[in-house]
Amino acid sequence: MTDAIPQPCDLLIEAGWVVPVQPHGVVLEDHAVAVTDGVIVAVLPVADARARFAAKHTVARPHAALIPGLVNAHTHNPMTLLRGVADDLPLMEWLQGHIWPIEGEVIGPDFVADGVSLAIAEMLRGGTTCANENYFFPDVQAATYQRHGFRARVGLPVIDFPTAWAKTDDEYFDRAIEVHDQWRGDALVSMAFVPHAPYTVSDANFERIRMFSDQLDLPVHLHTHETEHEVQESQQKHGQRPLARLDRLGLVNDRLIAVHMTALTDTEIALCAQRGVSVVHCPESNLKLASGFCPVGKLEQAGVNIAIGTDGAASNNDLDMFGETRTAAQLAKAVAGDATVFSAASALRAATLGGARAMGLDDRIGSIEVGKQADLACVDLEQVETQPLHHVVSQLVYATGRHHVTDVWIGGKAKLRQRELVDIDTAALIANAKQWRKRIAAIRG
Amino acid sequence: MTDAIPQPCDLLIEAGWVVPVQPHGVVLEDHAVAVTDGVIVAVLPVADARARFAAKHTVARPHAALIPGLVNAHTHNPMTLLRGVADDLPLMEWLQGHIWPIEGEVIGPDFVADGVSLAIAEMLRGGTTCANENYFFPDVQAATYQRHGFRARVGLPVIDFPTAWAKTDDEYFDRAIEVHDQWRGDALVSMAFVPHAPYTVSDANFERIRMFSDQLDLPVHLHTHETEHEVQESQQKHGQRPLARLDRLGLVNDRLIAVHMTALTDTEIALCAQRGVSVVHCPESNLKLASGFCPVGKLEQAGVNIAIGTDGAASNNDLDMFGETRTAAQLAKAVAGDATVFSAASALRAATLGGARAMGLDDRIGSIEVGKQADLACVDLEQVETQPLHHVVSQLVYATGRHHVTDVWIGGKAKLRQRELVDIDTAALIANAKQWRKRIAAIRG
Repeated sequence: MTDAIPQPCDLLIEAGWVVPVQPHGVVLEDHAVAVTDGVIVAVLPVADARARFAAKHTVARPHAALIPGLVNAHTHNPMTLLRGVADDLPLMEWLQGHIWPIEGEVIGPDFVADGVSLAIAEMLRGGTTCANENYFFPDVQAATYQRHGFRARVGLPVIDFPTAWAKTDDEYFDRAIEVHDQWRGDALVSMAFVPHAPYTVSDANFERIRMFSDQLDLPVHLHTHETEHEVQESQQKHGQRPLARLDRLGLVNDRLIAVHMTALTDTEIALCAQRGVSVVHCPESNLKLASGFCPVGKLEQAGVNIAIGTDGAASNNDLDMFGETRTAAQLAKAVAGDATVFSAASALRAATLGGARAMGLDDRIGSIEVGKQADLACVDLEQVETQPLHHVVSQLVYATGRHHVTDVWIGGKAKLRQRELVDIDTAALIANAKQWRKRIAAIRG
Repeated sequence: MTDAIPQPCDLLIEAGWVVPVQPHGVVLEDHAVAVTDGVIVAVLPVADARARFAAKHTVARPHAALIPGLVNAHTHNPMTLLRGVADDLPLMEWLQGHIWPIEGEVIGPDFVADGVSLAIAEMLRGGTTCANENYFFPDVQAATYQRHGFRARVGLPVIDFPTAWAKTDDEYFDRAIEVHDQWRGDALVSMAFVPHAPYTVSDANFERIRMFSDQLDLPVHLHTHETEHEVQESQQKHGQRPLARLDRLGLVNDRLIAVHMTALTDTEIALCAQRGVSVVHCPESNLKLASGFCPVGKLEQAGVNIAIGTDGAASNNDLDMFGETRTAAQLAKAVAGDATVFSAASALRAATLGGARAMGLDDRIGSIEVGKQADLACVDLEQVETQPLHHVVSQLVYATGRHHVTDVWIGGKAKLRQRELVDIDTAALIANAKQWRKRIAAIRG
């Protein structure tokens, strides 16, 4: 080994600890990750790495943990521009009295591009490298994510009424297919259908979604079972609970990304497990909007794949996956009445590999394994708040804040370096956010 | 006014926004706070402040909000050294299998002084300026808080079994009175009784506490109604629920600081309101230990004073009052099934003035008012995560992280300046924490 000629690689990241997520719960002390062409080519002890590789760039972070980039499995990033515009209100008053009237005035390509850009900066500073996006103007979203080198599944929206994006059912599908075709094969940006919710999408539109989802192998990402009220309304209107109705329409399968899922029976949980449905848990949104409590402990026990999402910053009011994951880990225990459920390691897996699997991207991201994309985040564990360090994974989930993230890579490209965004003009972003604040304040009068 | 000779003051802090907490919900744009001898002498528009005062030091933070320093109304700060030592376990296994065996080996003056020092650094970096402490060796705690210029109520522990602090009932009380007398009249450090919990303190000891509490006007700070199990056990053992038993013993009054309070009847809530009991809500501890859900919405509606505490970092696993306050504001809504309860302004009040009132310190701290101590924190609202800025108080509670705190003062003395701790050697603290990690790892084998 020592006589061998060192192998070239693009990037060698040496860390005090590598937390690969797969295998589950493992912490590799003094390990390095070698990257070539954006792909992880080796995970090995630092000493071995130095002997084996001649790296173009080496990044040494002996006091940090290297983790897979966090996957935000449900968000509405353009709405970052509406952060805190209205809070502490019942859902319908919040939507009808505040959000929709403002969106009616501002929605369009500029709003979407600027909101997504601000969101990308926030996500990168917090160790998030992939977003499951759910909003209008997927064409603009896709272009913005690609411009910033950020990984995303962009949503192709379907909703039963006219919006700024499309006026008729046919137009929703025509535009969806057009955007899908335009981005086919892109390395960073892929697509999913995002029918808004069971209560705003007809059976006919769900059937068309199922057909295209089958043909194009696209995930179907939708809010459902968000509240008990939604379930009851579905029973009144359709004679079925939303999941039963989706099942009748052929959508309860391993392409379904079911977001929220607070109101669930044991039978429904078993169905999700059997069919490979992924559940995206958005605990802070569910709490703040008083939607209900997702039975994470039961879902975990049934073997359902669990992912974590922040939801949009207009409701929640941040894109902080560290905070969201901590809340998820804590809340699951109280809801189950059992402090052993959804351990730190399970919560971290949900925030990474669980999200990747939900999004159908687990062959490429979500863990630190040879052959996967180098979507990575370094977390400083030598701060006052992260000492003493008895357990690395516990520290990452229960004590670390997003501000402890020092470095981020997506596909091997540095996006955050020693807390500085590599290719984003932060001052310009903030100046732009202030313009939007003024414009929105003027609308509100 | 313009002709008047400027008045001297020690410190003038100019902020983009001053959030005084009292009056409730108010945000004062472009205001300044003038401080002399550690006391707030004026709160007024920046332009007026510049005309009226000749300040020895001026600190200009046009992009920040100035808020009262946060009050952590329940913590066990020496246990910061046990952060993450054991997680995701049932309470009794966590205590008996991990925490107590370790404490048995390490507890003593060094452990207490080093743990409190680390905790003070963490609290200051997160905008907390006052702690309601609950642990052994109050003499060491008091000396440590005073050495760091940090405001605290230190707990005089009472528990029915021998510990490293005291062996007999008499010794607990003798040592309590001795420590109390030694610190009487200190500007920063005051005392409270901290009987551990109703299930570990006899009627006789509670009666002695009541007597001393009355004589010395000391608060009684204890964990109670933490779980349904505790309540049932009390009914079996004493034929009364804990609060009823405390009432029989004369302790249910405005000196009672009741921590946790998840298992409460409407009658008990009404009793707390009527008697002026303060409830310290520790949402993240309650979630993580699966203790239950504190009915914050009902307490708020009944007019009970609500404070917020992080609990100890061994269970929770940080001393982050921004995170705790956000969790409290979100969780209250889900528990009440009503998104309008415990608004951002109410949560911020609980984290400041509510804590001060619980601790019997609301004549001195908890709000930015003339005559109060200048315990203050500056929060940067011009970061990616805190833009756009539609609502200052919403941003502080729902979007701000503790890392956005730039400056902290206690009694007018700068403790954190542009994110740097003023008089704490951070590197030495971390090196010391690493020594404790090694020592504790050796105990655990």
